[in-house]
Amino acid sequence: MAKKGKTRTEIAELGEFGLIDRLTGKFGKTNASTLTAVGDDAAVIGTTADRATLVTTDLFLEGIDFDLVYFPLKHLGYKAVVAASSDIIAMNGIPAQITVSVGVSAKFGVEQLEELYEGIRAACEEYGIDLVGGDTSASVTGLVISATVIGSAAKESITYRSGAKQNDLICITGDLGSAYMGLHLLEREKRAFEGHPDPQPKFAGYEYLLGRYLRPTLRKDITEAMAKADFKPSAMIDISDGLASDLLQICKSSDCGARIYLDRLPIARETYSMAEELHADPVVAALNGGNDYQLLFTVPLEMRDKIKDIGGVDIVGHITARGTGAALVTPDGAEVSLTAPGFK
Amino acid sequence: MAKKGKTRTEIAELGEFGLIDRLTGKFGKTNASTLTAVGDDAAVIGTTADRATLVTTDLFLEGIDFDLVYFPLKHLGYKAVVAASSDIIAMNGIPAQITVSVGVSAKFGVEQLEELYEGIRAACEEYGIDLVGGDTSASVTGLVISATVIGSAAKESITYRSGAKQNDLICITGDLGSAYMGLHLLEREKRAFEGHPDPQPKFAGYEYLLGRYLRPTLRKDITEAMAKADFKPSAMIDISDGLASDLLQICKSSDCGARIYLDRLPIARETYSMAEELHADPVVAALNGGNDYQLLFTVPLEMRDKIKDIGGVDIVGHITARGTGAALVTPDGAEVSLTAPGFK
Repeated sequence: MAKKGKTRTEIAELGEFGLIDRLTGKFGKTNASTLTAVGDDAAVIGTTADRATLVTTDLFLEGIDFDLVYFPLKHLGYKAVVAASSDIIAMNGIPAQITVSVGVSAKFGVEQLEELYEGIRAACEEYGIDLVGGDTSASVTGLVISATVIGSAAKESITYRSGAKQNDLICITGDLGSAYMGLHLLEREKRAFEGHPDPQPKFAGYEYLLGRYLRPTLRKDITEAMAKADFKPSAMIDISDGLASDLLQICKSSDCGARIYLDRLPIARETYSMAEELHADPVVAALNGGNDYQLLFTVPLEMRDKIKDIGGVDIVGHITARGTGAALVTPDGAEVSLTAPGFK
Repeated sequence: MAKKGKTRTEIAELGEFGLIDRLTGKFGKTNASTLTAVGDDAAVIGTTADRATLVTTDLFLEGIDFDLVYFPLKHLGYKAVVAASSDIIAMNGIPAQITVSVGVSAKFGVEQLEELYEGIRAACEEYGIDLVGGDTSASVTGLVISATVIGSAAKESITYRSGAKQNDLICITGDLGSAYMGLHLLEREKRAFEGHPDPQPKFAGYEYLLGRYLRPTLRKDITEAMAKADFKPSAMIDISDGLASDLLQICKSSDCGARIYLDRLPIARETYSMAEELHADPVVAALNGGNDYQLLFTVPLEMRDKIKDIGGVDIVGHITARGTGAALVTPDGAEVSLTAPGFK
């Protein structure tokens, strides 16, 4: 593709977010209904004086986002719906419709596609989302899945990444790093049984990790509990790239710093034991693993008690003044700067 | 992928539309705002008592939908916006927002992606569409582009595929088959210069055909003229798969037949001469070529005069009773049944 004599800048030099800034920076805005464009979990489109439509899109590519050697198609369909819808939840919206486009290679038969759609349907039914469209195409390469989710929200209840204030508490739902450990377990067993006619992978005791990777949960229960408790976070994002990367997004959008405490990070027992078995660091899994689809949100200090009403939420740190950076504080008080991984 | 002892149905056996029916047939509807799901050019989502949001999505895969050997990236970006937005126009809606996801292989540098986005921006500016989101991912295979367009319309002005009535006139904008001939010319020159260090393709006199394939026009001018003339078609679809396939969609949705007349098909002079040069049939190009992005619509007989006000529209036939099938009538009065090509 590179033409002779022309400058070539590697995408990795910019990173995913730098790349998006460079590519979309020159785009203008012509429609009054475009309230928020690129830069948050979902776009916000004004529909009435007090309500908005939320739109978000995700692309899943074979060989990058999933490996069909161990990813059952039904789970893959389910996960695609959860992953895409998670961005609507992260805006405190309600996902309502989805379009799914699929590019399939010749190795796929109708039955394989039906398995994929069984999973899509299972997630749609579980979370009350309607499939409203899509595009099906042959692919000369691997399986391609593109999902766009449309949600709605009262404008006043939409939670942006930009609302975090100094001293706000940093909260996390569920646990982190378990999906990443599930992925590593699957990769290990794949290597161990490569070429075996009858693979017998060892997964006993680690079903939780596999489930977190292969069939994540949409934390719609959390936003519903928030609504019931009449509670709105000051900022929110879903943890899809890893806590470090997503917390840095909050800091960038809210123009603030953050301190999170290592001993408060929610890490599952299974994640610790798998990490030991694989000689991996469970904290790195929690910070940079990704695929968690848990929620990261901030709340003013005085709302600490309300968090208990929601349940299943851990307070892991607090927001600090602008210019103080984002860091992990170890039990001995040392600070480790948080960095985000590059282009996936 | 196929497991031993399991049934395997080839996707080609069902065709694209049969496949979509089979995959999406079991999906339910849980949201009151979902007014129209799968089955028209775009999904219709109710937002207020009298207005709706329209959503449509398109997937473009390298090697299937485009060949980077001769498709300039800037044109490709432009075309992706036009192709996706065309489905909103075909519902008589106004495209307002777009999300674009891109999967790029390692051979791409930032400059190549910038070219692609230059084209996306040119189309967005020309047609008043705001880029509001997307996803950027590495790809181990080819270039993948997924575009979702969000539009809006007054509910009463939305034009479905299902509204055609017996005796309605069948109308077509622009001309058909020229994009297909442009594609064939590009393919011919690609073959002729395969491996040449300095290819000198012969395109003189055929710039129109190349333009129709590489940089199609969004027929927003037509729906604007319709609105100005206070005119609403009884049914409408955009011609993306070819006249035959898209007319069959109208017949299926409206439960009717159709007759179109060979000598009334709008075919450009350049399409005829290119067809002669390539020993191809210009009528086949018009019927099954695809990539036209013109509009096919039906109107009651008494509105014949209003069509002239719109301009650039040809009446090519009429809607017939249910059960009469769809056919092309040759000058000698013979009828040739219309058939749609299979899975693209």
